[in-house]
Amino acid sequence: MDTLRRVVREMAGYVPGEQPPVGAFIKLNTNENPYPPSPQVLEALRKEIEKGLNLYPDPLATSLRQTAARVYGVDAENIIVGNGSDDLLTIISRACIDSGDPVAMPTPTYTLYDTLVVLQEGIHHYFPFPPDFSLPAGIKNLGAKLTFLANPNSPSGTAVPVTQVEELARALPGILVVDEAYVDFAEETALPLVARYPNLVVLRTLSKSFSLAGLRIGLGFAHADLIHGFLKVKDSYNVNRLSMVAGCAALEDLPWMLANRDRIVRTRERLCQGLKALGYGVHLSRSNFVLSYRGAERQERVYRSLKERGILVRYFDAPGLENSLRITVGSDPMTDRLLEEMGSIVGGERA
Amino acid sequence: MDTLRRVVREMAGYVPGEQPPVGAFIKLNTNENPYPPSPQVLEALRKEIEKGLNLYPDPLATSLRQTAARVYGVDAENIIVGNGSDDLLTIISRACIDSGDPVAMPTPTYTLYDTLVVLQEGIHHYFPFPPDFSLPAGIKNLGAKLTFLANPNSPSGTAVPVTQVEELARALPGILVVDEAYVDFAEETALPLVARYPNLVVLRTLSKSFSLAGLRIGLGFAHADLIHGFLKVKDSYNVNRLSMVAGCAALEDLPWMLANRDRIVRTRERLCQGLKALGYGVHLSRSNFVLSYRGAERQERVYRSLKERGILVRYFDAPGLENSLRITVGSDPMTDRLLEEMGSIVGGERA
Repeated sequence: MDTLRRVVREMAGYVPGEQPPVGAFIKLNTNENPYPPSPQVLEALRKEIEKGLNLYPDPLATSLRQTAARVYGVDAENIIVGNGSDDLLTIISRACIDSGDPVAMPTPTYTLYDTLVVLQEGIHHYFPFPPDFSLPAGIKNLGAKLTFLANPNSPSGTAVPVTQVEELARALPGILVVDEAYVDFAEETALPLVARYPNLVVLRTLSKSFSLAGLRIGLGFAHADLIHGFLKVKDSYNVNRLSMVAGCAALEDLPWMLANRDRIVRTRERLCQGLKALGYGVHLSRSNFVLSYRGAERQERVYRSLKERGILVRYFDAPGLENSLRITVGSDPMTDRLLEEMGSIVGGERA
Repeated sequence: MDTLRRVVREMAGYVPGEQPPVGAFIKLNTNENPYPPSPQVLEALRKEIEKGLNLYPDPLATSLRQTAARVYGVDAENIIVGNGSDDLLTIISRACIDSGDPVAMPTPTYTLYDTLVVLQEGIHHYFPFPPDFSLPAGIKNLGAKLTFLANPNSPSGTAVPVTQVEELARALPGILVVDEAYVDFAEETALPLVARYPNLVVLRTLSKSFSLAGLRIGLGFAHADLIHGFLKVKDSYNVNRLSMVAGCAALEDLPWMLANRDRIVRTRERLCQGLKALGYGVHLSRSNFVLSYRGAERQERVYRSLKERGILVRYFDAPGLENSLRITVGSDPMTDRLLEEMGSIVGGERA
């Protein structure tokens, strides 16, 4: 008897992102925030570790849902909390995808969506982004059970207008998941649409703009009926006590997040200018990273040279992305150092 | 179009365990440890919150796997870390159960197993424990793809001998998951069998004996091939930075855990004696809780009266369990208070 499912046996081996020890590299490869979380988060954590770690967390994450409800102007019954938004993506796929169900997504995009479809034995339908990364026209006509849209998208960093997201939600017979992991670095959000479209799920994470990648806190917003179904699927105690209080404290200190967001958006402009000066093109970024290319030149060598010099960026081997580097927007000093090293690597070459 | 899967729509609504605010009740309902985790855990957490929360955790939990490997005498490649052992149960079910696969479990047992089978559209086969909670004889003959055995079992608190677990592992064509959440309160473990049976998975948790229910840390032990498959299924960043360092520190301070374990085992004896004096019978507990009954008397009234008096225990409405209370072994003062209140509730009555 085969002990593992066929789909699992045939899945590609697990390739974790590069997560070296803290401080070993200038990390510009997984879109983390270069600034620390709010001091209020650290204070809340210091207090919480003194009490109650021997007790289970609240399975419904009531305090965090109430805080998020207040901050985002919705009801707590419209919110589910995940162990990162990856956990929410897993929950949604397990709640919605039956074997053989059609699932749509533009590509290239976040590769986890595909893994989740495979595990549920859904049928993935890929809709390649056009070169300007606008919404692929055919995606609304498939009749998909579930449609994933990362907006802003990764790895492109681009965003489609919310008016188009709304048209998509209206046109789709199934659920539309709008993954807004990077939305705090963008200009607009689909969150207000949740009140009008019962098939719309908007995901947020505190990993990027709130500087809490290390703590795994995701928020899902949807109609109460959908949330009710998702709660049946999630592990009872999926969010731990420390993440819960950290999430509340982070949401309570929006000015801290917004100040970091503003700094990152300014540095993003500096990064784009610097890349252009080196002969790179950049896609219009609405996120905290930039997808850049230098004509059709393969970028693996640049990625490797940067790594040798202590800087990690993201190089994708996937078809259509061999000529691209995805570079997280770090602090100004990190960005200056990156540009300096890239200049010395490609400086003397023709683009 | 139905947005949720039929199996999810038809599942019972999510009923979380009662997790009131810290200090609101004497909590003897979810088998938490009454004692705090090691001071070394708190110290490790205090240090970790000062650094790197903006960065993702190590997706392979290398430091925690290495520490657990040393403590338990296995290789790190034989270990997977979960966001609690619930996460590991979810991962295993998604990795192993295809639609229609037979899945076996003795009953009554931990109800999450059943939920996971339903979500995977497996076919559950229940093997009722005999009155003495010994291993149901027929369970080895089903030819199940996956068999769940909580040992010690919940809610009974009883354990089957490891020699019988070994016979079961040898007889089964599929995977045997031995959930040892409570094993530190028992006399023997199936962990050494992992080296001999490639179809055996042993699960541990730091929630009970290590006093870390609030942080969600589970450990899975199995043959490297199985672990490799499970790693494909798990969310990349399922264990956060703080849980990771807390887990390492807790495992490094085994004497702290063992001292608490000894105290709890002593109090368990005191609890059993006290219950017997009140006319209760108790199943032989190898865990940190006791399943007790008073003849065929329904225990819902006792549960409710205790709750009114500020004490939470676990009452199961499920068939065959209406006459039972599952009572966590707390500290001596908590146990004395429980027995006093139970005495005043049932004291004047005939058993």
